Amino acid sequence: MDKVKVAVLGATGLVGQRFLDLLAGHPMFEVVAVTASPRSVGKRYKDATRWMLGPSLPEPLGDLEVLETSPKALRGCGCEVDLVFSALPSSIAREVEPELAKEGFKVVSNASALRMLDDVPLVIPEVNPEHLKLIEVQQERRGWRGFVVTSPNCSTSILTLTLKPLMDHIGIKEVHVTTMQAVSGAGYSGVPSMAIVDNVIPFISGEEEKLQREPLKILGKLSDDHVEKAELKVLASCNRVCVVDGHLESVFLRPSRKVEVEEVKKVLEGFEGVPQQLKLPLAPVKPVVVRDEEDRPQPRLDRVVERGMAVVVGRIRCSEEWIRYMVLGNNVVRGAAGNAILIGELLVKMGRV
Amino acid sequence: MDKVKVAVLGATGLVGQRFLDLLAGHPMFEVVAVTASPRSVGKRYKDATRWMLGPSLPEPLGDLEVLETSPKALRGCGCEVDLVFSALPSSIAREVEPELAKEGFKVVSNASALRMLDDVPLVIPEVNPEHLKLIEVQQERRGWRGFVVTSPNCSTSILTLTLKPLMDHIGIKEVHVTTMQAVSGAGYSGVPSMAIVDNVIPFISGEEEKLQREPLKILGKLSDDHVEKAELKVLASCNRVCVVDGHLESVFLRPSRKVEVEEVKKVLEGFEGVPQQLKLPLAPVKPVVVRDEEDRPQPRLDRVVERGMAVVVGRIRCSEEWIRYMVLGNNVVRGAAGNAILIGELLVKMGRV
Amino acid sequence: MDKVKVAVLGATGLVGQRFLDLLAGHPMFEVVAVTASPRSVGKRYKDATRWMLGPSLPEPLGDLEVLETSPKALRGCGCEVDLVFSALPSSIAREVEPELAKEGFKVVSNASALRMLDDVPLVIPEVNPEHLKLIEVQQERRGWRGFVVTSPNCSTSILTLTLKPLMDHIGIKEVHVTTMQAVSGAGYSGVPSMAIVDNVIPFISGEEEKLQREPLKILGKLSDDHVEKAELKVLASCNRVCVVDGHLESVFLRPSRKVEVEEVKKVLEGFEGVPQQLKLPLAPVKPVVVRDEEDRPQPRLDRVVERGMAVVVGRIRCSEEWIRYMVLGNNVVRGAAGNAILIGELLVKMGRV
Amino acid sequence: MDKVKVAVLGATGLVGQRFLDLLAGHPMFEVVAVTASPRSVGKRYKDATRWMLGPSLPEPLGDLEVLETSPKALRGCGCEVDLVFSALPSSIAREVEPELAKEGFKVVSNASALRMLDDVPLVIPEVNPEHLKLIEVQQERRGWRGFVVTSPNCSTSILTLTLKPLMDHIGIKEVHVTTMQAVSGAGYSGVPSMAIVDNVIPFISGEEEKLQREPLKILGKLSDDHVEKAELKVLASCNRVCVVDGHLESVFLRPSRKVEVEEVKKVLEGFEGVPQQLKLPLAPVKPVVVRDEEDRPQPRLDRVVERGMAVVVGRIRCSEEWIRYMVLGNNVVRGAAGNAILIGELLVKMGRV
Repeated sequence: MDKVKVAVLGATGLVGQRFLDLLAGHPMFEVVAVTASPRSVGKRYKDATRWMLGPSLPEPLGDLEVLETSPKALRGCGCEVDLVFSALPSSIAREVEPELAKEGFKVVSNASALRMLDDVPLVIPEVNPEHLKLIEVQQERRGWRGFVVTSPNCSTSILTLTLKPLMDHIGIKEVHVTTMQAVSGAGYSGVPSMAIVDNVIPFISGEEEKLQREPLKILGKLSDDHVEKAELKVLASCNRVCVVDGHLESVFLRPSRKVEVEEVKKVLEGFEGVPQQLKLPLAPVKPVVVRDEEDRPQPRLDRVVERGMAVVVGRIRCSEEWIRYMVLGNNVVRGAAGNAILIGELLVKMGRV
Repeated sequence: MDKVKVAVLGATGLVGQRFLDLLAGHPMFEVVAVTASPRSVGKRYKDATRWMLGPSLPEPLGDLEVLETSPKALRGCGCEVDLVFSALPSSIAREVEPELAKEGFKVVSNASALRMLDDVPLVIPEVNPEHLKLIEVQQERRGWRGFVVTSPNCSTSILTLTLKPLMDHIGIKEVHVTTMQAVSGAGYSGVPSMAIVDNVIPFISGEEEKLQREPLKILGKLSDDHVEKAELKVLASCNRVCVVDGHLESVFLRPSRKVEVEEVKKVLEGFEGVPQQLKLPLAPVKPVVVRDEEDRPQPRLDRVVERGMAVVVGRIRCSEEWIRYMVLGNNVVRGAAGNAILIGELLVKMGRV
Repeated sequence: MDKVKVAVLGATGLVGQRFLDLLAGHPMFEVVAVTASPRSVGKRYKDATRWMLGPSLPEPLGDLEVLETSPKALRGCGCEVDLVFSALPSSIAREVEPELAKEGFKVVSNASALRMLDDVPLVIPEVNPEHLKLIEVQQERRGWRGFVVTSPNCSTSILTLTLKPLMDHIGIKEVHVTTMQAVSGAGYSGVPSMAIVDNVIPFISGEEEKLQREPLKILGKLSDDHVEKAELKVLASCNRVCVVDGHLESVFLRPSRKVEVEEVKKVLEGFEGVPQQLKLPLAPVKPVVVRDEEDRPQPRLDRVVERGMAVVVGRIRCSEEWIRYMVLGNNVVRGAAGNAILIGELLVKMGRV
Repeated sequence: MDKVKVAVLGATGLVGQRFLDLLAGHPMFEVVAVTASPRSVGKRYKDATRWMLGPSLPEPLGDLEVLETSPKALRGCGCEVDLVFSALPSSIAREVEPELAKEGFKVVSNASALRMLDDVPLVIPEVNPEHLKLIEVQQERRGWRGFVVTSPNCSTSILTLTLKPLMDHIGIKEVHVTTMQAVSGAGYSGVPSMAIVDNVIPFISGEEEKLQREPLKILGKLSDDHVEKAELKVLASCNRVCVVDGHLESVFLRPSRKVEVEEVKKVLEGFEGVPQQLKLPLAPVKPVVVRDEEDRPQPRLDRVVERGMAVVVGRIRCSEEWIRYMVLGNNVVRGAAGNAILIGELLVKMGRV
């Protein structure tokens, strides 16, 4: 089978780099175009990028010419682009992604701009693949030939992968989550070292709103032309800590009925979804890995589990009314590029690309 | 007035050092004796200690001879010891502190060993100074001439200073707290750099139990010969982060009635206690400082507020049923040595020393 | 005596903040004006600044209105400005500082722009106060009513304070220096956490050139209208490490004659200069403090020695041909604002302000 | 071919873990025995170890029973041990390694205990494979049936790989090296976080002596029954920085003749040795990788080059008399376990095992 030809928008940023890193040698996708901001346009990718994911960037990609982020540039790139992965900043995504969809491009976006729109699917492939049916609603309503599917905020993806099986098997009334998020979540220059060395910053702009809102849509029921939000409350308190990669979340969850640790553990470990059944290339064997050690998960050790595609849960504790646990996920893989690529893989398998 | 002569037990550890640092030049106290583990006994303090609180230790203290930790050694130190501050490890405190009290020494201890005993006061001077009346119960019941008063666990002191005014003015049903604790809380060698650089450890042995249990005693009502525990539930999840000093706590609190941010702020800022009224030397002007910036409190910036004796609150948010806020306290000052010395100051003012 | 009225240019950056911090309550100086970049002009200082030097900025300064950086704005500030401290970026200093001097302002600058000009003094008050005579040359040659005196690059100040006594008493042929520099040296946003956490960056733009060139001018002999550069070679290799404040330098120095450790130590400890003789307010008791411990100096412990105005030397080792030692200095105090203020104090005492 | 059966001594420490990590799935070696200190003896390896090299230890190794470190225990392990890799602490190695060699075991040791003995080869396979001939001298002189070959100190291996080609092609008179070493070099608990967060420690016990002495032996000429030390001087200044893995060294080298940057680069890049010619499994394609970027090498990015077996050089600068460059090596791979395994591979190829 010929590989699906993909473009990566915003390819020089940290999430863009992670897209390229995961797409290098991918069995299903071939990167044929990369775009970035005006000051990089026209340069070779390797000259436009400060590669942060290892000693050197994947060889062949370095020679790609950086294009402008526009339908025109993508059409003129020399070959048909079958699928577009977007790592654009939200303010730019808001303008460009609808234009691209209108012009027939199929976009899987990591940007937050369109996530909460009624006819835009917000998808974690293991959790709500059926929401992809909103694509038809979107195309019909907007008259688009292409479409935009969105991938959730990093801390949302990580949390929601654990909420889904608990909601299905036990029921959830309320969730309190305190996050300890890595600096990579803010991009290469997002967190100055002066701000975070020997420190914690108890605030991330917009993060709590996303983490309180997005899971309700993802966990919601598809109902004709929209999603009925799930009926649970999420309250969040988000912090930046001095960690390079890996978001750790302290979860207090009020279940619908009393449970014991063993049941919680079994429910989480037993969780699998469509990506596992279809054996998608980037799908982890288990999306939720449970560890029994008293001091896990830890960002530096556990962010590489399943190449960053599984979340790792530990310290499950049950009291009268609340379950407590810690969950760790790789914010740039499962929390960003990896989840978006998994959506792409699913779209291909479904024949939508 | 002559200064009160004090001994510091376990003086070479981090908390012991902080005691000496805070007692150097103290208007009320004079350090006349220091004790440490057998390998330090007989050395001069400056030769037995790796001083970590600045370039050099306070001059005159360095020449004190390190004594054995025993009633006998304290009696033989060359002058009457009026008050003993203990920074002993819990396992040693459990043996030695009762011996000392039996022999007539008055001990204010930072160790956890005796904290939860019915007749041992566990005191934050702004919160429950009246619990010091348990001293009489303790002396009568045990036949001690001296006594032991205890200072709470670091994360407890910090949290409870904010709970007290909220309980009194608004009422509290339930508290969920996720801590991000500094490495100094584990002592000089407690957290290897290999464990914590670029990492978070989601576990601190015994910490959650203390943080769930101690506030109920501190906030409880004195009733004849014991304390009736306060009726609120605390659930904790404790983490170690890569910060040198300063514990940050993310609090979710269910109040007894609906409140707005402004009221919470006013209640916290208005809080003061006996140490403020008596203008004790180490008492902060306000025990709880509230900051309005969206990204405070931060450990590196706020751990020095009021020389580490005030806790700093920020990010107060109120939803339907829960108040959320962040509180930061200096774990070795208000969370340990500073609170103990404040107890000592109060005991002196009350004529108990 | 009335206080000398000073302005601080570039007051919102890290060095600017350090100027204000050191000038708050200064016995000789009173800050009457602050300037910053256009986006801050017109705001109150406290609203224009993210204060990084502690929990809160010094009270009265916060209400100063931020002015434009220009002669006109300084003249219009409401009172005579007797002395100007500049923490401007070099590119702006290059334009504005000569304009100010021309218009009669007396400027002590931390910027690198004019440091190497023949008629601009580059001064460490303990090392080459006599170079201030270049002010006359400067005023005559350029027709300026005011003047510009410059303070050296941070790593230069720290190194050169140790070179001066060694040059005078022993003689120096060659110096090899490898620096480990703090992130504050690059300003608040200069070093992203993604770049430096769990890392070292073996490059600081322009730093090695400055460190190789500036000491030769500072240690040179004043000869009529210029400085004869000192005849020694400095080779540097500059690195950024994950430290907030405090530059550590590993020095290999080839002396003119064979020496023993004790002599080196004695020479360094015995060093003092005009600021010590005049007892200038910010002068450290000893500009070079020598420590005997095998593992000092250390940035976190020693950067506060003498309020950051002394450099701390340790690990002096002598072999056949080379002396090795470590020197630590506070890069934002002695390496920037503190040294500049000390120049200002000296200028006042000399009657030049 | 049957795999060579190996034992790893001191297998629970950081270097021991790295041995197991590199030996898992090794084409030439099979781990059949592991030893550790008395408190671990009898446990399964996975229960005795806090695995630090990733989320989980290599599967089959976890079930090995931990043995005592003695000839008797190794003989009783259930199969013939063909080769022994030692990650023992030096004090224990000094006793046990000679015993093992006497009893016929062939030992490749990472310990420093025997490195400088006249008849013990100290080997970097690319630099001085011919020194392995000392094995015969050793066996004859001591009457051993087995032997001990040693691998150098971490900072030595890294430096010496760059010195070898420069010595051969250009000539070296003198080397000044300032190291910035990772905390993993001191073992899991070696560097407390209190010591190194926001800090640098300018001292590592014994390190400078090793780094000044070992290269002279490694670069020396084999002459009958001993090695004539190379005639060059090395002066070192060793520092610990807040980096998990990867030692960075700032080198000032006085060559025998004047050279240009391009020649230095060519000489370093062109270097290869016996492991490359024999294509040993762990041999890097090039032992010295040169990077042209102005800010490389960096520990976090470059420590994984060639799985940690290549050293990375950058910032080559030539002045009149000195060459300066930075070199980075993975201290636990090329600086410890990796170099030792490469020696083992070479011994097998030479028929000595």
